[in-house]
Formats: sequence, structure tokens, C-alpha cells
Amino acid sequence: MSGAADREEGLAFQPKFDGDGLDARRGDVLMVAHMNAAALDATLESGVVHYWSRSRGALWRKGDTSGQIQRLVELRVDCDQDAFLAFVEVGGDGGACHTGRRSCFYRRVETGGAGPHLTFVEQEHSSNPPSRAGAR
Amino acid sequence: MSGAADREEGLAFQPKFDGDGLDARRGDVLMVAHMNAAALDATLESGVVHYWSRSRGALWRKGDTSGQIQRLVELRVDCDQDAFLAFVEVGGDGGACHTGRRSCFYRRVETGGAGPHLTFVEQEHSSNPPSRAGAR
Repeated sequence: MSGAADREEGLAFQPKFDGDGLDARRGDVLMVAHMNAAALDATLESGVVHYWSRSRGALWRKGDTSGQIQRLVELRVDCDQDAFLAFVEVGGDGGACHTGRRSCFYRRVETGGAGPHLTFVEQEHSSNPPSRAGAR
Repeated sequence: MSGAADREEGLAFQPKFDGDGLDARRGDVLMVAHMNAAALDATLESGVVHYWSRSRGALWRKGDTSGQIQRLVELRVDCDQDAFLAFVEVGGDGGACHTGRRSCFYRRVETGGAGPHLTFVEQEHSSNPPSRAGAR
């Protein structure tokens, strides 16, 4: 197989990198952060999710200061192996966002008027699919 | 507010960039791709998700060749506005992956033995949370 075909159809693990943290029970996206080889290795070895902080240039074990440890339940990789989904069980208060919210995705983009702007998603539903889709 | 606080707590839309495509009804992650300002503008203007292909250096309306058009239901942005979740309704065969699968996340990373390797997730469940988490 070519490099691309092997990366996409094979079972060889040849990662490039980015990571999403998902709630393992609900499957909803809590956060998106960067991984590198060191973060991935530390995650697989320890069973606790590590990211790579590009702003600090440092390996980052999520939850070290907040208590929001992410215990790895399952790690999936996408077709071209440049993105991961980490299904996690979150420690501490059960949140993932440094703002104190459960999910980092607490705002939606609205259009119209003076151009794109944000509105808050109801916090209870901040990491659920949009209700208007479910209602169809 | 400082730039970071405004980006995180405010309603001003000051994006940086990356995009996840999620199934709008089920909320599961179908794919991860890059967005830039042009892709975001085109997405918001047309209601159809556009990405930026870094390998081709071109704006990419997902589905133009495959028919897997992603109609935007809702777009969410994360705390520091460098990642988006696009809740979408997928056209064509309902898939998102260029390999023909519904989701790009059809393999999990396993450890042990000769080191990390991949196994296929059962296709029916390829974009659901891991069953062992649900069973707890």
C-alpha cells in the first residue's frame, strides 16, 4: 500500500496530531487541544490524557491544577491519522473548560444584523446536539 | 476585558480556526478538518460547510465531488475561538469520510504487545461512544 493508503486502511499506527476530548458516556465533545508525540505517549502509558500546550511549549497533563483529570476510556484516530478522539471520564467537578464550564463549546455563531456574533448555548445543553435538529 | 477574556467570555466573534463536523441529530463526530477565514465566511454565507484544504491550498466545499454535502444546522465555537463544532445534516450517502465510511474515526488505538496499533471499531458503532463506558 502507498503511504496514504496504509495510513488510512491499515492497522499501523502512524500518527500526525490533534486531539478532541469527548465525554465517554455521552459522546459529546468537551474540548479540542493539541497533541504531539510526547503527549500521545504519555497518554497511552499513563491512561490519563496529556496534551501539548503550544502557547507554553510544554507537556500538559490536563487536570493537574484544576482536578479535571481525563481518564482515557478509548482513543480513536481518524482516516489520515492527524486527529484523535479521546473518550474520557472526567475527574474533579466533571468539567473540561478552564472557564468553569463543562464543555468549551458554550457559544454558537449567529449571523444576520451587523455580521457574525455569538450567543450562549443554554449551559445544560452546551455539549448536546442542537435541539432544533432533534425536533425535525 | 483583556483580549483573552473577551475572546472567552464575550460575544464578539474573533475566530482563529479548526473545524469538526458533527452529525446534527446524533451529535457524534464525523470528521475533523481545517477552516480558515474564507472557509468560515463561505460556510456562514451559504449554509453549507466549507473547509480549507491545506494540502491543496484551496477552499473546499465538502461534498462537491462526493455528494456528501454538509448542510449547517448550528456552528459552535470553543472558549479561545480556535476550534469550531459544525452540527450538520449530511447529503448524498450520509457519510463524511472519503474512504466511504460514515465517520472518519473508524479505528481505535490499542496498546500492549509490540506497542500501539489500531483495530477497527465495528462500523455500525464507529461514531458512538465506546460501549464499555456505557456499560459502567
